[in-house]
Amino acid sequence: MSDKEEGSRPTKRTGRRPGGADTRGAVLEAARTEFAARGYEKASMRGIARLAGVDAALLHHYFGSKEQLFLAALDFPVEPATVVGLILAGDRAEVGERTARFVLTMWEQPEVRDRLLAVLRTVVGSEQIAELLRGFVVRELVTRLAAALEVEQPELRVELVLAQIIGLAVARYVIAAEPIASADAEDLVPLLAPTLQRYLAG
Amino acid sequence: MSDKEEGSRPTKRTGRRPGGADTRGAVLEAARTEFAARGYEKASMRGIARLAGVDAALLHHYFGSKEQLFLAALDFPVEPATVVGLILAGDRAEVGERTARFVLTMWEQPEVRDRLLAVLRTVVGSEQIAELLRGFVVRELVTRLAAALEVEQPELRVELVLAQIIGLAVARYVIAAEPIASADAEDLVPLLAPTLQRYLAG
Repeated sequence: MSDKEEGSRPTKRTGRRPGGADTRGAVLEAARTEFAARGYEKASMRGIARLAGVDAALLHHYFGSKEQLFLAALDFPVEPATVVGLILAGDRAEVGERTARFVLTMWEQPEVRDRLLAVLRTVVGSEQIAELLRGFVVRELVTRLAAALEVEQPELRVELVLAQIIGLAVARYVIAAEPIASADAEDLVPLLAPTLQRYLAG
Repeated sequence: MSDKEEGSRPTKRTGRRPGGADTRGAVLEAARTEFAARGYEKASMRGIARLAGVDAALLHHYFGSKEQLFLAALDFPVEPATVVGLILAGDRAEVGERTARFVLTMWEQPEVRDRLLAVLRTVVGSEQIAELLRGFVVRELVTRLAAALEVEQPELRVELVLAQIIGLAVARYVIAAEPIASADAEDLVPLLAPTLQRYLAG
């Protein structure tokens, strides 16, 4: 992805690729099939390339890593690697506030929100996709982030952060209950920050 | 409901009712139609009775309040009134722990969990049901609980508790990521309790 070093920008819904839109569509379709059939861990770029009838080297060249292909296949607008980098950068005493602000900034962008909500709906509606996301989230986000934390049960704590964030999204954007639906993001940050701070830094 | 005073017991999926299973089915169908068409606030017991072709007094007699009819129509296994009572009973310094333990105890019962997950899936999958649940949750749970809290922005804080609980359910039971999926409930209580305590008691 050309924008992978641009920090908090969402992954792009790219248009035409060399090989044409049909090739891209075929690759993403093959990726969804392969990920669903084998799970995130066991699916391979080679297998996906074979299924799509394209060269494996070409697949790596245009989609980068298996992680990036997975994100594209699910139209997932945020790269875990970027998220982990942003959360861990800077003062550890402010990790909760930084995380809260980053998460809200992402969700407040309508295009990102729509795509995240689409992923959420798919995950909650399909056990197969839920299983798929599980492998991806644990490997690319939970394990990476937990490795850098200096707390006991770091994986469990990262998942409690995830739980707070997912639940916030459901309450604010899906159920859209007032007053949380219309609350200013900046008013939510000081309420959420101590929660995330305690999970992430003890 | 015959079991409405039995504390934390889930609402029952009752079998035959006077009037027969068909009458009960017709009433629940009419309730779902009326709630969906008019929203929780504006739907009336009278309107539902008319739609179902039964006597309004009979409806009150067998289903109790509009709240209870709504719970039955959505097959919602917990009564907000019961939840609010349990959360507020006892020492306010332990409200977070009490809430965490109550929520986990409910979700750990397979039958309750299945029904709560069914509601969650329906809500996330349908904007109409989400809108419906919004009115119900705000009126029957958020407003009631917030009225008894001695914090600023009590409604917002109650909804952050809800967010943490919904997100916990998604992470633990839907995505089922490890280690949160297999964590012992008693190990989750001390991690969740301070979060809920701070939201509910400042």
